[in-house]
Amino acid sequence: MPELPRDSVGLVTPQTAHFDDPLALACGKTLPAYDLVYETYGTLNAARSNAVLICHALSGHHHAAGFHSAEERKPGWWDAHIGPGKSIDTDRYFVVSLNNLGGCHGSTGPNSENPETGRQWGPDFPMMTVGDWVHSQARLADRLGIERFAAVIGGSLGGMQVVQWTLAYPERIANAAVIAATPKLSAQNIAFNEVARQAIRSDPDYHDGWYAEQGKVPRRGLKLARMVGHITYLSEDAMGSKFGRDLRTDDLNFGYDVEFQVESYLRYQGDTFSTSFDANTYLLMTKALDYFDPAAPHGGDLARALAPAACPFLVVSFTTDWRFPPSRSRELVNALVRAGKAVSYANIDSPHGHDAFLMPEPRYQAVFTAFMARVARDLGLEDHP
Amino acid sequence: MPELPRDSVGLVTPQTAHFDDPLALACGKTLPAYDLVYETYGTLNAARSNAVLICHALSGHHHAAGFHSAEERKPGWWDAHIGPGKSIDTDRYFVVSLNNLGGCHGSTGPNSENPETGRQWGPDFPMMTVGDWVHSQARLADRLGIERFAAVIGGSLGGMQVVQWTLAYPERIANAAVIAATPKLSAQNIAFNEVARQAIRSDPDYHDGWYAEQGKVPRRGLKLARMVGHITYLSEDAMGSKFGRDLRTDDLNFGYDVEFQVESYLRYQGDTFSTSFDANTYLLMTKALDYFDPAAPHGGDLARALAPAACPFLVVSFTTDWRFPPSRSRELVNALVRAGKAVSYANIDSPHGHDAFLMPEPRYQAVFTAFMARVARDLGLEDHP
Repeated sequence: MPELPRDSVGLVTPQTAHFDDPLALACGKTLPAYDLVYETYGTLNAARSNAVLICHALSGHHHAAGFHSAEERKPGWWDAHIGPGKSIDTDRYFVVSLNNLGGCHGSTGPNSENPETGRQWGPDFPMMTVGDWVHSQARLADRLGIERFAAVIGGSLGGMQVVQWTLAYPERIANAAVIAATPKLSAQNIAFNEVARQAIRSDPDYHDGWYAEQGKVPRRGLKLARMVGHITYLSEDAMGSKFGRDLRTDDLNFGYDVEFQVESYLRYQGDTFSTSFDANTYLLMTKALDYFDPAAPHGGDLARALAPAACPFLVVSFTTDWRFPPSRSRELVNALVRAGKAVSYANIDSPHGHDAFLMPEPRYQAVFTAFMARVARDLGLEDHP
Repeated sequence: MPELPRDSVGLVTPQTAHFDDPLALACGKTLPAYDLVYETYGTLNAARSNAVLICHALSGHHHAAGFHSAEERKPGWWDAHIGPGKSIDTDRYFVVSLNNLGGCHGSTGPNSENPETGRQWGPDFPMMTVGDWVHSQARLADRLGIERFAAVIGGSLGGMQVVQWTLAYPERIANAAVIAATPKLSAQNIAFNEVARQAIRSDPDYHDGWYAEQGKVPRRGLKLARMVGHITYLSEDAMGSKFGRDLRTDDLNFGYDVEFQVESYLRYQGDTFSTSFDANTYLLMTKALDYFDPAAPHGGDLARALAPAACPFLVVSFTTDWRFPPSRSRELVNALVRAGKAVSYANIDSPHGHDAFLMPEPRYQAVFTAFMARVARDLGLEDHP
C-alpha cells in the first residue's frame, strides 16, 4: 500500500445523512425527503465549537480532502488547504464538507428516485438556489450537533453560500471566508452559463433531460460546456504561458485534428468531464449561480442586504481571475464596510486566474492560515493532535 | 420606393470575377479555378490611383456598404465608414470589397462544385490562410486594373489581411489601416475558436462536413459557435449596461426558458446566424485566424517579419476590446516602430468592445477620416462627386 502524504487527512469515508422532513424550496416546490452525502476531517471537540463547513463550487462535491483509497491518484479538491498543519488545520478544526442537493455525487439530485413517480427525478428535479442549499446545510449541522460553525468557507459558488449563511443564520456562523466570489453574476457571467446550458440542452442525447432513461449521456454538450468553463477558469496569461501557440505536432496539418496544444488540453478537459459529471446537475448548478443576488430584494443595495450579518469576514480575490475579478470581490468588501461589518480583504497576486482559489499559492496560504489562527484564538480552540 | 440615406453609396450590385489560373495554397493544395464576388463603390480615376481595398472579418462578406435593394432593411456591414463624406469617402475613393475564398456569400467555397468530383467541395475545400486570401485579392486587383491600392483597410481578421498585404505586396499598397486586430492569436483566442469548431463538428447534423448532401444544417453547432463569439465581441461593460441582470419576464420561472435578457439576446443572435452562415466556411475562417503569425518564420521577431513593409500604417484599437485588446495592437505598433516604419496609433475610448470597429464612434471616425484625407493629399487625389 503506497504511503499517504504526512500532511494529508488520510483515508476518508463518505457518510450519508437521510432527512425525512420536507424541504420547502425557493422555486415553490418541496423536496419531500433527501440524502446529503458528506465527509468530515478532524475531531469535533467537546464544546462542539471547532466545526468548519466547506461549501463547494459548480462542479465540486463532498470529497474536499484526503483519499478514498490508497490507490486514489488525486486527493480531494481542496486538499491544498485542508489537513494537519494546513490553512484549515485538521489538528484544530472539525471540517464538514458535503455534496449539495441536486448534485451527482451521492446527495439527492436528478439521478435519485422521485418518490412520487418511482422514476428518476431527471429534469423534474426542482431548481435549487443558494438559499435552499444553505437551508439544507443548516439541517446537516443540526444532525451533527453543531449549533454554530467556527467558520463557513467557500470559493466561487461556494463563496456565495458563505454570504448566504451570514444572512440566513447569522447566529450560527462565527466567521465567514468568501474566496474568489462575487455578490452576484454579471451579464457576461450569465452569458457564459447560458452557452453551457444551450450546449447541453441542444445535444440530441439530452432527450429533454430524460437521457438516463434512454441509456444516453449528452457527452457532446457536457464537453462543450466544460471547454467554455475552462477558458474562464484560467487567466489569459496562464493559458498563454502554459500553451502559447505551441503546436502539438511538428507542423500544421491544415485540418481539424489537434494542431495547437491548447486545443488538445481543452478537448481532454471536456472529454474527462463529460464522462464524470451529470448534465442535469450541471444545468441546475449554473442556474443557482445565475439566481444568487442577495441585494435584489433591497433595491440593489448590497450594504442594506448585508445588515443581518454578524460575523467577521475574510474576502480573498486573485489578480488574474477574470471570471470573478477582484473588482467584483471589492463590491462585497465595500458593501460590508458601508454596512459597518468587520472585513479583511486580500487580493492575491497569482497568474492562475479563477483556478487560483484551489491552489497552494504561498501568500494565499499565509492569509488563509492567519485568518484561521485568529478564528481559533477568538474561540479559544486548542489543537487536537 | 423608400428613399435611401443621402450619405449612402446607394443601390449596389455584386459582381463576379472568374479566375482560371490555378491558385497554389499554403496548405499544399491548389485551387484549380475560382470565382470572387465583389462590390465597388465610387469611381476609379483615370490614373487608377484612388482604389481602396476592404478586407472582411470572420463572418463578413463583400457587401460592405449601400443596399442591394430599396427594400433591404440594413445596409452593408461597414456602411458607417464607407460612403460620400464618410471616413472612406466614395466621392474620392474607388472602394473594392470582396468575399474571400472559402466564403459562403458567392465566392468559391465549400458550397461550390469541386470540378474533380462534380460534388460540392464540402469539407474537402482546402484550408485557406490569410496569405492565400491576399494572393487572390491581388489577382482581383490585376483584373480590375489596379496596380497599387491607395489603401488596404480591415478590422479584426481583416486587419490581419492588411498586415499580410504590406509583407507580400509592399509595392502594391500605399497605405495600411489595421483596426482592432492583432499580429497573431493568443492561446485564449485559439481556445474560443476551438470551442466554436467543436460545437459545429460535434453537431450530429454536421455529418463530417457533408451536411448539405444530407439535406441538413448543423444549426445547433452554428448557434453555439455564434453565442460564444458574441460574448467575446461585446465588452463586459457593454453587456452589463445593455442587459445587466434584467429579467425577460416579471419573475424568475425557475426553469430553462429565457429568464434573463442576455439569454434572450444570445439565443436570438445564435439562431439568426445559424440560418444564414455556412458551417464549413465558419470552420475554415476560424482556422485562418489561428494560423496567422507572420513573426513565426522569423523566430517570433515581429519587427524582423515586418521588414518588407514600405507604407505608412494606421493602427486603431478600442479600450474595451477584450478579444483583441489594445495591448495586442500595441505589439504591432511597437514592432513597426522597432522596424523603423511610419505608424500612427489611436486607442479609441469606446464601451462597445471588439464590435466598436463596426460602429460610428465619433473619435474613431475623426481619426479614420483624417488618415484617409492624408492618404488623398499624399496621392494627389481629387474628389469625384
